[in-house]
Amino acid sequence: MADTLASLRSLMASHSPPLDALVVPSEDYHQSEYVSGRDKRREFVSGFTGSAGLALITMNEALLWTDGRYFLQATQELSDQWRLMRIGEDLAVEIWIADNMEKDAAIGVDPWCISVDTAQRWERAFVKRQQKIVPTSFNLVDEVWKNRPAAEINPVIVHPLEFAGRSVTDKLNDLREKLIQEKARGIIFTALDEVAWLYNIRGSDVSYCPVVHSFAIVTSRSAFFYVDKRKVSPEVNAYFEGNGIEVREYATVSTDVTLLASDQLEPSIAKGCSEANSAPTEADKMEGDDSVDLIWIDAASCCYGLYSQLNADKVILKQSPVALPKAMKNPVELEGLRKAHIRDGAAVVQYLVWLDKQMQDIYGASGYFLEEETKKKLGQSKKLTEVYVSDKLEGFRASKEHFWGLSFPTISSVGSNAAIIHYKPHADTCAELDADKIYLFDSGAQYLDGTTDITRTVHFGKPSAHEKACYTAVLKGHIALGNVRFPNGTNGHSLDILARIPLWKDGLDYRHGTGHGIGSFLNVHEGPQLISFRPRNVPLQASMTVTDEPGYYEDGNFGIRIENVLVIKEADTKFNFGDKGYLAFEHITWAPYQTKLIDTSLLTSEEIEWLNTYHSKCRDILAPYLDETERSWLKRATEPVRA
Amino acid sequence: MADTLASLRSLMASHSPPLDALVVPSEDYHQSEYVSGRDKRREFVSGFTGSAGLALITMNEALLWTDGRYFLQATQELSDQWRLMRIGEDLAVEIWIADNMEKDAAIGVDPWCISVDTAQRWERAFVKRQQKIVPTSFNLVDEVWKNRPAAEINPVIVHPLEFAGRSVTDKLNDLREKLIQEKARGIIFTALDEVAWLYNIRGSDVSYCPVVHSFAIVTSRSAFFYVDKRKVSPEVNAYFEGNGIEVREYATVSTDVTLLASDQLEPSIAKGCSEANSAPTEADKMEGDDSVDLIWIDAASCCYGLYSQLNADKVILKQSPVALPKAMKNPVELEGLRKAHIRDGAAVVQYLVWLDKQMQDIYGASGYFLEEETKKKLGQSKKLTEVYVSDKLEGFRASKEHFWGLSFPTISSVGSNAAIIHYKPHADTCAELDADKIYLFDSGAQYLDGTTDITRTVHFGKPSAHEKACYTAVLKGHIALGNVRFPNGTNGHSLDILARIPLWKDGLDYRHGTGHGIGSFLNVHEGPQLISFRPRNVPLQASMTVTDEPGYYEDGNFGIRIENVLVIKEADTKFNFGDKGYLAFEHITWAPYQTKLIDTSLLTSEEIEWLNTYHSKCRDILAPYLDETERSWLKRATEPVRA
Repeated sequence: MADTLASLRSLMASHSPPLDALVVPSEDYHQSEYVSGRDKRREFVSGFTGSAGLALITMNEALLWTDGRYFLQATQELSDQWRLMRIGEDLAVEIWIADNMEKDAAIGVDPWCISVDTAQRWERAFVKRQQKIVPTSFNLVDEVWKNRPAAEINPVIVHPLEFAGRSVTDKLNDLREKLIQEKARGIIFTALDEVAWLYNIRGSDVSYCPVVHSFAIVTSRSAFFYVDKRKVSPEVNAYFEGNGIEVREYATVSTDVTLLASDQLEPSIAKGCSEANSAPTEADKMEGDDSVDLIWIDAASCCYGLYSQLNADKVILKQSPVALPKAMKNPVELEGLRKAHIRDGAAVVQYLVWLDKQMQDIYGASGYFLEEETKKKLGQSKKLTEVYVSDKLEGFRASKEHFWGLSFPTISSVGSNAAIIHYKPHADTCAELDADKIYLFDSGAQYLDGTTDITRTVHFGKPSAHEKACYTAVLKGHIALGNVRFPNGTNGHSLDILARIPLWKDGLDYRHGTGHGIGSFLNVHEGPQLISFRPRNVPLQASMTVTDEPGYYEDGNFGIRIENVLVIKEADTKFNFGDKGYLAFEHITWAPYQTKLIDTSLLTSEEIEWLNTYHSKCRDILAPYLDETERSWLKRATEPVRA
Repeated sequence: MADTLASLRSLMASHSPPLDALVVPSEDYHQSEYVSGRDKRREFVSGFTGSAGLALITMNEALLWTDGRYFLQATQELSDQWRLMRIGEDLAVEIWIADNMEKDAAIGVDPWCISVDTAQRWERAFVKRQQKIVPTSFNLVDEVWKNRPAAEINPVIVHPLEFAGRSVTDKLNDLREKLIQEKARGIIFTALDEVAWLYNIRGSDVSYCPVVHSFAIVTSRSAFFYVDKRKVSPEVNAYFEGNGIEVREYATVSTDVTLLASDQLEPSIAKGCSEANSAPTEADKMEGDDSVDLIWIDAASCCYGLYSQLNADKVILKQSPVALPKAMKNPVELEGLRKAHIRDGAAVVQYLVWLDKQMQDIYGASGYFLEEETKKKLGQSKKLTEVYVSDKLEGFRASKEHFWGLSFPTISSVGSNAAIIHYKPHADTCAELDADKIYLFDSGAQYLDGTTDITRTVHFGKPSAHEKACYTAVLKGHIALGNVRFPNGTNGHSLDILARIPLWKDGLDYRHGTGHGIGSFLNVHEGPQLISFRPRNVPLQASMTVTDEPGYYEDGNFGIRIENVLVIKEADTKFNFGDKGYLAFEHITWAPYQTKLIDTSLLTSEEIEWLNTYHSKCRDILAPYLDETERSWLKRATEPVRA
């Protein structure tokens, strides 16, 4: 690592112009949250493996910014060459640069790895001392990264209508109408999940995310897909052609954006059959209209590198027009999500049944149901590690219909590891299960019909009164958020507090947001909606998905998190004040909460009623997917509780 | 009114340059919320009497913007020459102008009547079509206002230390330290309550607000008070001199701001005795330091007129340094507020006892306690009107120690009038009390030791199940907000939702914020903190005050609001996650909620416990201020309720 920093500093010094600092973001060319191995540049330079963070290397310092989910993990992973900067507590990176680096300092960054939004925010901060962003013409990290993984050639697959619910033609028609409204001649898509959603394709270029490294450009009459062509089979190529989409080489996007800017981007193939389906009058109108000359990009996802090729006066910086259609699931997607979550819930129950038995057999635990001290440990011929059990969990999921893979690295964490919010166990170093400690698992899968994400926290021995009080506070927050009704126009930031109130009552809190959108066989974290203490003014709307996952983490001791996926639906309220329409949540995750961890004396009668109803539904919904033993375990796990 | 618009349009046409539109804001030269009679220009031109609103007069239209509290009232008060624009639903005024008025349009406004913030926001919006703000050199409304009230000459009085809690010297020392930190040579105070707070003076230039029409300028070594000198007695003048403050004529502020800008503002009198108390070394440092050359103004309260006299490069636009010290009450002010609220609560109970008897005697009502149909109306020799009873309420308050006057126009409203959120009854047209209808009164007083604000909603006959359900939902929100604990750093916007959740459950809501700060014998509405659905990022801090006043309004039927004043205090939580410190609220308002209006089956056991505890405290705290009859009435009113 020391070598890496020295090599980078040497490259920074010899760069033209010389760089006073180099920024290494976590993101790839598509501003992805999860990136492929060869794009893990920030991890390579810093050693910090979390999914979110930003490294800043100056001639004599190395700093890493990350958020509250990763404070503890970063402390453990960063060498003493690195300084941890806590987002929300320490200065933001651009403010730190403006305050701490020299006047006129040159801040280097690969312009393909930062968004337009970020670059513009930095530019505003840098005005103060005339510092400047220097877009590097090559990626300095790639130069010093000797064993950088090679690019993989994974096939592009078509996501069939029975799961996607809407045809590409339909999506393109809608999109083109929006282009006309905004007087846009074309739009550039850089976010991998947006390209996948728009063209109804999937891939496996990034672990856990069924996406393809690709870009898309759509104009009134043409549509392009930029990808390593080796990934496209003749059949898939025919699918694209049939939908009027031309497949071009990945690297071509850069020159094509320049052509688009000067209105010279033309398809080189004969027009596809989609032409017949589209509305030629609208497109004709657009072609003939000189005022339709703007290029639309989403400043949050488009990289600064592509943006710089455009004339800023001719750019619309606006949220991508597919962001909301993708977030608001269509009926087919919703049905798929519901079904996928039922199969997934069955896998979770099967896992718990298996784990319960193992914990009793191997560790002499009193088990999932009994709240007693662990018996004397048996002679342990076998060991259960965090990774071993999470592989088992994956196995249960893999046996289910439409399983494709996991949706993110399973967080399987015992005791103090559970306090590391995004903990990722490693096979060779991870902890062993422990009947006297809390076990938290946060996991999910990709099924062809939907993406899942669930967290349960359990104890196989005797939890302390404190652990139970904390678990109950987290559960109360989880229930309060899930049960709220709210008028249209309300954003997730406003609702976030509901999950925290029961914790705040005791002076407790958690350093992460409360919920994120979830894709439909796409990214497990999906925007634009968010439930977080950080303001984001995106109103929640019917048929969006969102997780409900409050937690509580005690460094060095234990961690608790409870997570279900919710779908937003119209609420059947008695009144409709202001004619706004009111919304509510539907839980689509089905797996029991461990009642042994609940101090029922802290629950209201409404909360108890909700819990018992949810458990009773769990039992009914999952039964068909379980065997006799599992069913009777679930019956016991979902027995009604009383105050 | 037609004449007024015609006269104004004639003046607009003959103005140089000619005006395409004239803006008439509600605010006076000090951006006050409540203004004196002669400053009610917007009311004069539009006929709309609410406290908040903005009139826009073009050559062929007249529009009035106001907020949700006033939608219904404005509909009733505006003639058909006027169009109501609903803030939050319709376009904001500057957007409307940008979208609807001609390119290059000249928008006239008296630059003393709009804040810097507002003017700058408009300027940004007007760029789109090169429209411009034209600061008029005289106020066009004053020209056409024939019977404009004359300026009153009300004495300036000194607010003694036993109520103010901090000396002027102490406040000025603190202020000057902040000036040094910001490299400011001087600061201009334009908000009336800030001048009053800083100099520990009060007056009666504006109904309900004990303030003086005045400005202040403070520099490192001098302090000025701009006022009509006829208001300053020799004794009060000596008080100012003794504190090193020079009294100058009100209109002089304009030239003095210009002198301040060129560093030529000098006191003309010998230095006062405060010199001995101040820290000369700090001041000396400031005087000799050329880099200390900025002028500090608060863009939210300073008028555009004064700002325009400064060199924009040498101005700090930042929240006033007295905003937080004024909002965070000192121990003497807190003690005064608590005591004032006890006396005020006693007056409210006396009023309810009186009203209860009147309603039974005159209208045959079953009364405050019994939930029965009204008996046959008696022969009414006497009538109770909304104004008559509110005068009676004022009488009970006036009998209390330290009473000075009301803190705002009493809202005394029967039935459908209660749905007009800021209803103000007029003696000759107002409604009569009605035993079959809800009665809402929102009122408060200025006492020398504190300002009060309380709302109760009552029914002297048989409330409907719907009215009870709504009252209970409002009460649940009121209790939820009042009982929350939250970490330092939380703003009022985040808490606002807590008061709405129980209403949202049924698809109900209210179109106003949930709480505002309250002054210490100062303005009844005081910032910068706010509890509202509108974001305002001012963290709530210990020793701030805030009201807790959710409501529900059914146009044409009834209105419900429940309001207490709360003080923010440190919470004694079991833990202190993140070392942030946790806060809670202390209710300082004491008066019963009408239990007859509560559907206790909708309350949780926690809510019932809270209610009973609050009522029991009411009884104990108010008893010493009541006679035997009143005490026994209160005992009955505060009987514990059961689920």
